[in-house]
Parts: sequence; C-alpha cells; structure tokens
Amino acid sequence: MLRSISLLLLIISSIIAQAQDVAGLEATSNSRSVILIIGDGYDDQHVTMGRNFFVGHDGELVIDTLPVRSAVQVQTVGKDSDWVYVADSANTATTLATGITTHMGRVGTGTEDQDLETIAERASAAGYKTGIVSSSSVTDATPASFMAHVASRGCENPDIILGGELYSVDYVGCPQDATSNGGPGSIAEQIMSASIDVVLGGGLMHFTTSDPNSGKTALMMAEEQQVTVVTNPAMLASTATTQRLVGLFAEGHLPVRLQGVNGRGAEQPDTSTLNKIDWRLGSVTQPDPITCEPNPAYGNTPSLATLTEVALDHLSQDNEKGLFLMVESASIDKQSHLRNPCGSLGEIAQLEEVVSVALSYAELHPETLIIVTADHAQAAQIIPEPSLYAEIPVPVYSPGHIARITMPDGSLMTVNYATNSFVSEEHTGANVPLFANSVGVGLLPAFLRQRQVHDVMATFLGL
Amino acid sequence: MLRSISLLLLIISSIIAQAQDVAGLEATSNSRSVILIIGDGYDDQHVTMGRNFFVGHDGELVIDTLPVRSAVQVQTVGKDSDWVYVADSANTATTLATGITTHMGRVGTGTEDQDLETIAERASAAGYKTGIVSSSSVTDATPASFMAHVASRGCENPDIILGGELYSVDYVGCPQDATSNGGPGSIAEQIMSASIDVVLGGGLMHFTTSDPNSGKTALMMAEEQQVTVVTNPAMLASTATTQRLVGLFAEGHLPVRLQGVNGRGAEQPDTSTLNKIDWRLGSVTQPDPITCEPNPAYGNTPSLATLTEVALDHLSQDNEKGLFLMVESASIDKQSHLRNPCGSLGEIAQLEEVVSVALSYAELHPETLIIVTADHAQAAQIIPEPSLYAEIPVPVYSPGHIARITMPDGSLMTVNYATNSFVSEEHTGANVPLFANSVGVGLLPAFLRQRQVHDVMATFLGL
Repeated sequence: MLRSISLLLLIISSIIAQAQDVAGLEATSNSRSVILIIGDGYDDQHVTMGRNFFVGHDGELVIDTLPVRSAVQVQTVGKDSDWVYVADSANTATTLATGITTHMGRVGTGTEDQDLETIAERASAAGYKTGIVSSSSVTDATPASFMAHVASRGCENPDIILGGELYSVDYVGCPQDATSNGGPGSIAEQIMSASIDVVLGGGLMHFTTSDPNSGKTALMMAEEQQVTVVTNPAMLASTATTQRLVGLFAEGHLPVRLQGVNGRGAEQPDTSTLNKIDWRLGSVTQPDPITCEPNPAYGNTPSLATLTEVALDHLSQDNEKGLFLMVESASIDKQSHLRNPCGSLGEIAQLEEVVSVALSYAELHPETLIIVTADHAQAAQIIPEPSLYAEIPVPVYSPGHIARITMPDGSLMTVNYATNSFVSEEHTGANVPLFANSVGVGLLPAFLRQRQVHDVMATFLGL
Repeated sequence: MLRSISLLLLIISSIIAQAQDVAGLEATSNSRSVILIIGDGYDDQHVTMGRNFFVGHDGELVIDTLPVRSAVQVQTVGKDSDWVYVADSANTATTLATGITTHMGRVGTGTEDQDLETIAERASAAGYKTGIVSSSSVTDATPASFMAHVASRGCENPDIILGGELYSVDYVGCPQDATSNGGPGSIAEQIMSASIDVVLGGGLMHFTTSDPNSGKTALMMAEEQQVTVVTNPAMLASTATTQRLVGLFAEGHLPVRLQGVNGRGAEQPDTSTLNKIDWRLGSVTQPDPITCEPNPAYGNTPSLATLTEVALDHLSQDNEKGLFLMVESASIDKQSHLRNPCGSLGEIAQLEEVVSVALSYAELHPETLIIVTADHAQAAQIIPEPSLYAEIPVPVYSPGHIARITMPDGSLMTVNYATNSFVSEEHTGANVPLFANSVGVGLLPAFLRQRQVHDVMATFLGL
C-alpha cells in the first residue's frame, strides 16, 4: 500500500514538475532567478579540507545542508577533437556559460573560434538583470567566459591581446579579436561594452592598460558606455546608481583572507644525504606544523559576500523579471596552485558566506535556483598524519610539498601537493561536486555533464 | 500555487516517510533487503578514471544512473580521542558495520576494545539471511569488520593472532582474542562460527594455518559448525546446500582482472643529470604509455558478480524475511596502493557488474535498498597530459609515479601516484561518494557521516 502511495506521489510530482517547466518556459513574466556560485578548483578534497577546518570533522558546511548534491563530469575537447581528461578554468567556465564544450584556454568561444552566446547575455536580452562577481580579476578566465569572447584567456587587456610575453613565455595573443583589427577588443574592453549590469572583482590594471595603437584604455570607455566605475569600498558604499556598475578593488586578483603563518605554504620534507642515495636509508624531517593567520595584504578588501550583497541589491532595483548572477570564489584554485592551503581555506570560508547570502536572498525570492559547483578538480590531497606506514623502519614522506596544518582543536591535517615539479601545481581530472537549494530538487540529476549544468539553468530561466 | 502544492506534497511525503519508518520497525514480517556494495578506495578520482576508461568521457557508469548520490564524511578517532583525517579500511568498515567510529586497524571493536555488534549479526539475529562477499581474503579488514571482532586487522589466523612478524615488522597480534587465552579466536576462526549464511572470497591460507598451541585450523571447524566449504568454481557450481556456505577461491586475495601491459604500473619520470642538480635545467623523459590487458593470473577466478549471484541465490532459499548482503570490490584500493591503475580499473568493472546484479535482484524484490559507497579516498589523481605548463621551457613532471594509460579511443589518461616515497601509497582524506537505488530516495540525505550510512540501513531493516 505504501508503495502505491509512493507511486502516486511520484506521478503527482512528475505532473507538477512538468507544470513548473511549462510555467518556466511560458509565463516568462514570472520572476525567476539563478545564482551560480563557482568555487574554482573546489573539488571533494578541498570541500573536506574546508569542513574539517571550519566546522570540524563532525560538522556541516552550509553547502552540506543543501538538499541537492550531484557529481559533474568535466569535459574538454582536444585540438584534434580528441578527449582531454583535465580541463582549465577557461574552457570549463565557457561550458558552464554556454553549454558547449571547447578547447582549453578559450573564453566564450568554440573550437572553431566562433563566439558562443552566454547564459548571462541571453538572460540580459530576455530582460533579466545580470551580474558577475569574482575574487579574481574580472578579466580572468571564469568571470570573462560569461561576458566576453576571445580565442585565448590571456587576452585580458588592449596591449597583451596583440601578443608579446606572458608568464615569461612568448604569447601569440588574440590579434583577430583586437579592435585595431576590427575585433570586439580585449576582455576588459568587452566587459565595458557588455550587457552585464554589475561586474565586481579585481583587475583594475587591465582597465588602465592602453591600446598601443590608439592609446585608449578600457576605463576610458566608461562615460560613452554609461558605466559607473568604482575602485574602492568607500566609493562602492556611497555610490547609488541605476547605471551599469563595474567595481574593481585591486590591480590584479583580490588579496586572499588567510595565509600560513609568516606566509608559509606547503614545503618539501627535508631528507638526509643517505636518503638521497637510497630511499630506504637515512632519515627525513617533516616540515613544522603551520597555523593559518589573517593575510596582512587583505586589508579592507571587500569580502566576496559583501560584493554579492551589493550585486543583488543593484540587480533587484525595479526588477520584476528576475536575475542571473555568477559569483566566483577564485582563489581556492589559485592558492592551491601555489601550495598555500591556508589561502585556499580562507577562500572556502568566503564561498560559504556567499552561499549564506544567496540563501537569504532566496528566502525573500523563493523562485531562486542556487547552484554551487566547481569548474575542475585541483592538486591538493589530505594525506595521513603520520603516514600509514610510520612504523616501517624506512623514511616515508611525500615526494611533493606538504603542509601540516594546525587545526582549531590542535590536531594536524596534512595536505599534499605533488602533481608536478614546477612552481604551480596542476589541475586534476575528478568529477566535481554540485550543490543546489530546494528549487533544484528534481531539476538536477545525481550525475550530469558540465554542459548540462548550463542547460538546467537556461531551462529554468526559459532561455 | 505550485509552491503550495509542493509544500503539501512535502508534508504528505513526510507523513509517508514516517509511516514507512514505523512499517520498517514494526511490521518485521515484511520482506526487506539491503545490498551494501563497497568499492575499497573508490573515491571520485577512481570513479572518474572508471567512467573515462569504460564508457568514455561522455558516458555513464551504472552507478551514474542511480537516482541518489550523496557525499559521506569519513571519521576516525585517534589514540588520544583526537580527530584523525585519513582512515583505513578496518575502522571505516567497522563504522559502516556498526555505526560507531573507532581507531584505525580495529575490526568490529570500539576504542576500548569492546566488541561492537554488526548490522550483519543483528540482521541474522532478527531472522534475515546474511552474506559477505569480497574479492579480498574474507579475513581482510572490510569483510572481517562485518562478522568478527579483534583488536587489530592483522589477526587473520590462529598463528599471527599470537603476534610475530607481519610485513617485516614486529606485530603484537591480538593475544587477548586468541582461543588459547579464552578469546573468540582469529578472524578466520570467528568467520567459521559466525552467524553469517554465506561468505565468499579469497583467503584459504588463513583457514589452513594452524594454532601453534592446539594444531587446529579454522577449516577443521567446518563439520562441527555445519559449514559447507568450497574452494574452487567447479565445487561452487555443483554444491547445493542449505548449510552455511564458505567459499575460498584463492590462498590470499582474489587475483585482479586487468594489469598494465607486461605487468607495468605507474613509473617515475626519468630526469637528466642536469635536472637532478637543478629542477629548472636539463630534461625529462616521461614513461611510455601503457595499455591495460587481461591479467594472466586471473585465470578462472570467479567474478565478483558471479559470487554475488551465488550469494543471492543461496540467501533467497526459503527466505520470507529478506537479507543483508555486503559485497566488496577490494582491489580498487589494493591496486592503487601498488600504483597499478589498470588493476584498479578491472576491479571498477567488477563493481559495476555487481551493481547490475543487485539492480536485477531489486527488480524482482522491490523492497531492496542498494547502497554503493567507498570506505575512504585513495592516492590516484588524474593529471593533465601533457602538463598545463608544457610550454614553459623547464622540465615539468610529477614528483611521484605516473601511468599514461592508452584509452580505448587512443587518447591518453595520465594517473599520478605521489602520496609517499614508499612502495605502497597512502589513503587520502576526501569525503567519499555514495550512490543508492530508488528505494534510497528520501532515506539518504545529500551529506552524511559514515556512521549514518549504517543507521539508514539498520532503520530500513528495523534493526
């Protein structure tokens, strides 16, 4: 009997779900909103690091309280249309923004360099208010992929787009996209002319870099494009505008909130001379434990939660249609590349605060779909402290860099970074988690490909 | 309006869920079954490796089609009651089996060495048929924790339980558990006298090892305990018995199905002398790609799916109550420790087949809750092929071991093992995935601790 009732319920749910779909697609005057929160590199290792550190081994993060949790397969197309098993933030953000899989490094463009209309652009065209918030430079791959279209993620300003040197390596740029060649311009220029209502984050230097041909900067476009630009928290607080708003609160990426004591990150274990000759001999000295402390450079940087609140306030003005807002906690990834687990942890805390802000918004605006996900997996791994093999009479240690983090309860959590020998770690290829609020129940299956995350959001907004 | 209907539905669902709980607890004559499938070390990196390899980047594994996917926080208690962030298979299986968190290495015992009754034992006492199937020795930590109680996982037979040397290290054993000291005996002995109806896997050597005091082996207990023992697939196929059944198809763990070509696993990149002096100089030669091929040692080893079918057939005889069956694909972990990704992949395929067998059983027995989960995360990471930094003019390579696996479509998937310098990799600390069939919808939240997996199963069976 109970099974029959369950079946009946399933049928009723299905009918209602269909009715909701139809409502979403037809009754477009209903207010519906999507808040997409991307934790860059926020895979299951980092989620667990955050849980262990901030709420303890038995606690729950805000994301853990969300009713939907799915796994998302990340997909990348290789240059020969082959499959590539590890992605970057450009192609994954492009997939999330457009539903199309593409080459690594591409920003809002497909494998043939064709411009791909993004969900933010389509939402804007359909009358939704739109916003992009990031703790990176707003010209960085993830935010850029929602509002710009260039062949390569490095083309952030009117100078580098013409090519030159980037990260000490020759860089071809995206000359075909440069305004001097009749293109739409660099990412910074495209942001200034985009249809996005609010853009908040870092990256001022890309807006003050001039085109070597015309001498113009993206910032000079503000008046013509009717964009209000603010560059510090005081200006942000005092600015009431109905114009498009661009806020740039650092020259590059926003400083992160936490660091290892004295700026320490993961370090290589120190092995004795004998051990260097034979791994079974000699001894090893593990790095000293580190505590996480406030990063002095963070200063009065506006928090990601504050920027999210400002964006939501701005987008809610005279808005009966709804909104699309993408918020990225960018430096979980960036600090993981640099082997700074404390840096990543601070940005996980920032993401948690953003999710809380979004949930508060959804309380007042019940037709708000909140999705939290990562773009790709990242290098960090929690490894045993001490080794599982500590009793074996040979030195056992990580071949990479480790940080032994002193936890609030005094225990040690050891994080390993060992994907390469370079100064910046690799991304990894695991499927990534996705979380959603109650509005997402029934919309998001337990497993989906990254392009389908876009499709669910687009369908929900009737785009 | 739709929201109101949704709310109403939620209330109805809640009432029904409560009614179902009561039905589960009171109407114990209803047939209900639980099939718990554990992929040892089957974390998100391994799940993605399996998906990429067997069904392609855009495909779906059988587990991906299941409607429930959750994340499970693994928990371990340290010797000083502190938190430990990376577990082993003994304490995690004990938690899954009993709902109690404990020390690493413990099998069915708590932090004070007290015996913890397992869900299999309670199910048996309540009239359910029970079975344990594993591709490891049935005395290994995961299967043992469901049917035996010893202080330390190494106490697999009547000899080593008294202490001695294990893995070339002095081992204290579990003398307090030895029969000669009035204890319940080694894991092998406890299995022979356990209430479990079917036990299938490897580990014959532990049943033929004699107690140095009495000269007795666990196998000698068969007649007295009314246990039918089979030791090869032919015997298994021809044996029709209503007695308790113990099947042991290898001396130790069952051989795995796949290996790297010529037995190759992950290897260390070969760096030039100059690079050994300074990481920015010289060159590196990556290991050649490897293909996965059948493991000659696998021979006529019964598949895990076959063992699962045999167990289900045996447990279904004259069974109106239902059953509890735990099936472990053990060597995802064991092969990952040994840096053999092909070995792990073959065992992922075995797990997939077991899930299919379980789903077929559930089609005929709709009140069957199928849960698939991992006990802990593991070392392997999918890393970029080539490096994200391949264009940087310095050698970039993994500091650990890598395997560049030739995929069925000819592309390369590179897997990195770099948690330590030893011959066996470490476990890692990420939360692990959990999958369940439709019976689990509403029973399993999106996030839970490992002990709660036990609690959900126990509640479902009214235990």
